[in-house]
Amino acid sequence: MSTKNLHDEQFEETTIRLFRKLSTRMILFHQLAAQSLGLVHTDLKSADILIEFGPMTAGELGKKTGLSTGSVTALVDRLENAGYVKRENDPNDRRRVIIVPVQESRQPIKKLFSGLSESTIALCKEYSPEELEIIFDFLKKGTDLIDAEIERIRE
Amino acid sequence: MSTKNLHDEQFEETTIRLFRKLSTRMILFHQLAAQSLGLVHTDLKSADILIEFGPMTAGELGKKTGLSTGSVTALVDRLENAGYVKRENDPNDRRRVIIVPVQESRQPIKKLFSGLSESTIALCKEYSPEELEIIFDFLKKGTDLIDAEIERIRE
Repeated sequence: MSTKNLHDEQFEETTIRLFRKLSTRMILFHQLAAQSLGLVHTDLKSADILIEFGPMTAGELGKKTGLSTGSVTALVDRLENAGYVKRENDPNDRRRVIIVPVQESRQPIKKLFSGLSESTIALCKEYSPEELEIIFDFLKKGTDLIDAEIERIRE
Repeated sequence: MSTKNLHDEQFEETTIRLFRKLSTRMILFHQLAAQSLGLVHTDLKSADILIEFGPMTAGELGKKTGLSTGSVTALVDRLENAGYVKRENDPNDRRRVIIVPVQESRQPIKKLFSGLSESTIALCKEYSPEELEIIFDFLKKGTDLIDAEIERIRE
């Protein structure tokens, strides 16, 4: 193996280990946060999908999250009971039921995440605007990569 | 509100939105990956904890993951059935049972994650070594922040 390849391999290992550690922590954090709100761990992220894309039908939410019809129904029940979403008739088509996020009730979630939000912002402020541009560019492209992989797994 | 504060607020909103989007995608990806392996979504990350820290008792795994005793038992059962871990007697204390990750059987997981690993490495190679140093420094510090928040929620 040439030095170049060895170097490449080490670089790849370090990179993968870094991302694995980050994603493990992110997932553990969300698991604990959801648990402390009496929700199943992925529920919060499904609620985030509704906030990001706006109200949608259960079928559309199933497509976005990759959950089965039964799982989506159970998810919406839990979120509705906890006051995070409402089922409403679509104003554009009264036969359709859409799931609408309830913004006001997100206070407990906000409180839970506010510590992490604050420390993340404090961390960002340690970097120069030029450095942050590089970091944010990387994170946006990384998010797009994951989106592409989600599509690939679903197919 | 002064221009400075407005600027700050916009910066904070953009930052939080970016991280929220990234974490939503990471969690969705892991949910789908686990589903396609017949596991519950956080199981893979619990298996990762074992690989990162080495074999440990169910009690220790519970502490690291924040899961209750019953949830850890069910988790270890699923992972053992799927061939990802083994229960073994601790060679240092035969009365203790430790959970040992089974590295060989991680092939299906690796295959599932290899697309994302490859595209992440390709993305990293678009940046100069100096830029990557900034990005990796940021990601490491970000991981530490999440670790600190996990501790805080647990308390």
